[in-house]
Order: sequence, then structure tokens, then C-alpha cells
Amino acid sequence: MADIPFTFEIALPGGVPAHYDGHIVRRLSDMAGMFADERTFGDLLAQGDPIMYQVYEIRRPEVAGELLHGTSIVHAGQVGDEYHMTKGHFHTVLEAAEIYYCLQGRGMMIMETPEGDWAVEELRPGRVLYVPPRWAHRSVNTGPQEDLVTFFVYPGHAGHNYGAIESRGFRKRVVEREGRPQVVDNPLWSSGR
Amino acid sequence: MADIPFTFEIALPGGVPAHYDGHIVRRLSDMAGMFADERTFGDLLAQGDPIMYQVYEIRRPEVAGELLHGTSIVHAGQVGDEYHMTKGHFHTVLEAAEIYYCLQGRGMMIMETPEGDWAVEELRPGRVLYVPPRWAHRSVNTGPQEDLVTFFVYPGHAGHNYGAIESRGFRKRVVEREGRPQVVDNPLWSSGR
Repeated sequence: MADIPFTFEIALPGGVPAHYDGHIVRRLSDMAGMFADERTFGDLLAQGDPIMYQVYEIRRPEVAGELLHGTSIVHAGQVGDEYHMTKGHFHTVLEAAEIYYCLQGRGMMIMETPEGDWAVEELRPGRVLYVPPRWAHRSVNTGPQEDLVTFFVYPGHAGHNYGAIESRGFRKRVVEREGRPQVVDNPLWSSGR
Repeated sequence: MADIPFTFEIALPGGVPAHYDGHIVRRLSDMAGMFADERTFGDLLAQGDPIMYQVYEIRRPEVAGELLHGTSIVHAGQVGDEYHMTKGHFHTVLEAAEIYYCLQGRGMMIMETPEGDWAVEELRPGRVLYVPPRWAHRSVNTGPQEDLVTFFVYPGHAGHNYGAIESRGFRKRVVEREGRPQVVDNPLWSSGR
């Protein structure tokens, strides 16, 4: 966190930065209650506890004017017909945006506002995604085998609020239908959960 | 500038975003006084006014929490032994960082603080550069022929201050010596200009 300029490479394929300050590993067991097919979730968990996604963080002071950044790697796979995904979060400071630059793989970003507006955008290499302030966001890996790798940047003062979206869920899910990703309603959300 | 999520591709090679709100073109004539070899600068200008660099901007509200972003394309070439470069700038809000992700080409970023600290970092594809708050920054294309293309992100409230660095110049220059880039002192800076 020395206050001098620095550089690092992002190895591709893979997405692991040559330099990082934090490494978050989320396993299947960390995602309890987030997939629609709870029976399959339980069956898969009984067979092991695979890694769902990993985040490599470059830390900076958590103040406006700084930019927190790193890479997100969502491993391919499904829980029933639902693709592997991240927990997703609002920013604690709701009025904080985030930028993703997709480096590898295929995916979608599921997004929604506190007012219930929703959006889904596709991710693929070379594509930039702008998540405006107020939009919670969850990455989904829709590739059959390859990791989804994105480089992300967000304002230093943004913070993460996982709880709000964890308790209400996202309105939309991305599932496989006839071999292709499809956006569907989240039955748990509409049930007022 | 609709406040809904959006995506766009950055075409490579090239670096032109599929969607942008602003396109800045800087020609040789815009760089008067910035290259050490003023005679060669004049000779080149007499032969035409080539494009030195271009910036494609995606505009957002200029407030903290938003992220301004786009691509920078510095065309290859030299003025005497000095490589093509951007004007360079401090942020108006000095305490604002910037991130560069290099997409194409070879280059260097020349940086310095108001206190006179300096740093130079190499740019090449796949490399991230973090410019902390307080550091003015200028991109230099050190490739013999290829454009230097970077994707940049900075805080919405940062602003640009070209004047401060234009009147005092950067402390360091990047010149070709025996076919390779080398960092040297800026004689104009040390002359108290």
C-alpha cells in the first residue's frame, strides 16, 4: 500500500495477478440458500465442497479518490440448471459505481436496484461493463468449461453490502435451457422471501 | 448517460470503443513547447500536423462514486530522439487516482508529484498500472511502429489540470538511445522553466 505508482501483470489464461493483497475463496458451502435447487445443492455439498469463485484484491485506502481493483474468477459449473455465480452485493455507499473488463470466458452480470429495477448484461473478452451507482451486481459463469475472469475497479469509499441482497435474493436467475443460458424469474424472490 | 447498466466492446487491435461520448484528437501542433528538440518539432510541423494521440471518453456525471473511463491511443513516432507522448495532467482534485490497463503496444508512464518525486513505469499488454492520488501522469509510446492502447478509469470528481504540468514540464523524458528507450532528465525542467 506504498503511495507510489506500481504495476502488475494479470496472467491469462487464469486471471491471477502477479501482485495482490487479498485472496477470497468462496466455496459451495458459502452459497447456502442462494441457488434455487436446494436438493441438488445438498447432494453436491455431500460429495465435497468445491470452490465456486475466487477474488484477488489489490488494497488501497478506503477513501474517495482511491480505486480498489482486482480480478474475479468464477469457475464453470451448475447447481441443477443454475450456473455458478458470485454472492453479489450492493455497495455500502449505494451511490458508487463499478467497472468490469472481461478478460476470459463467457458470462452474465445480474443487476438490480433497491427499487426493484433489474438488468442482465453479457460478459465476454474485450467487453467493458459499467455498473452505475445503486445497482447490486452478481457475476454468472455461463461458459460450459472455462473460468469467467474479469478485472474490476470501484471507488475506494464504496464498501460492500452483502446482507441486503442475501436476505432478499436477486429477482432474476440465469439457468441452462436446451444448452443455452436463459434469464428467468427467481421463484424465491417472488415468494416474498 | 442513461443511468442503467451498459456494455461496450473495445476493438483490438486499434482500441476504439464501440460506444463513446467524446473523442479528443491531439495533433503535433497541440504539443508546442513540450518536446526538447524544438528545431525538429518545427521542421516536422512544417511538413504537416500529424495526430499524436487520441482519447475516447465514456462520460458519466462528474461526481465521486461515478467512474470516468475510456481508451487512450498514442501513435508511434518521435520528435528528434523523444518518443510521442500525451500532454499529461494532474487531476484537479489532486487526491484522485487513475488506473490503466494496457491493451496493446509498448510504452511508459512518466509520473511526478507536486513535491517533485518522480516515477516511470513500463506499459505492455496485460499489465495494470496504478497511479496513486497526487501523481501527474503522461503516457509515452516507446514501440517502434505500433499504437500504444490503454483502457483508463478514474474517479468521477477528479477533473483534469493540464496547466500546472504544462508550465513546469515533467522532470523526466523518455528518449531513444541506441535503439532503446531510456529515461533522462528534462533540461527544460532543470533550467527552472
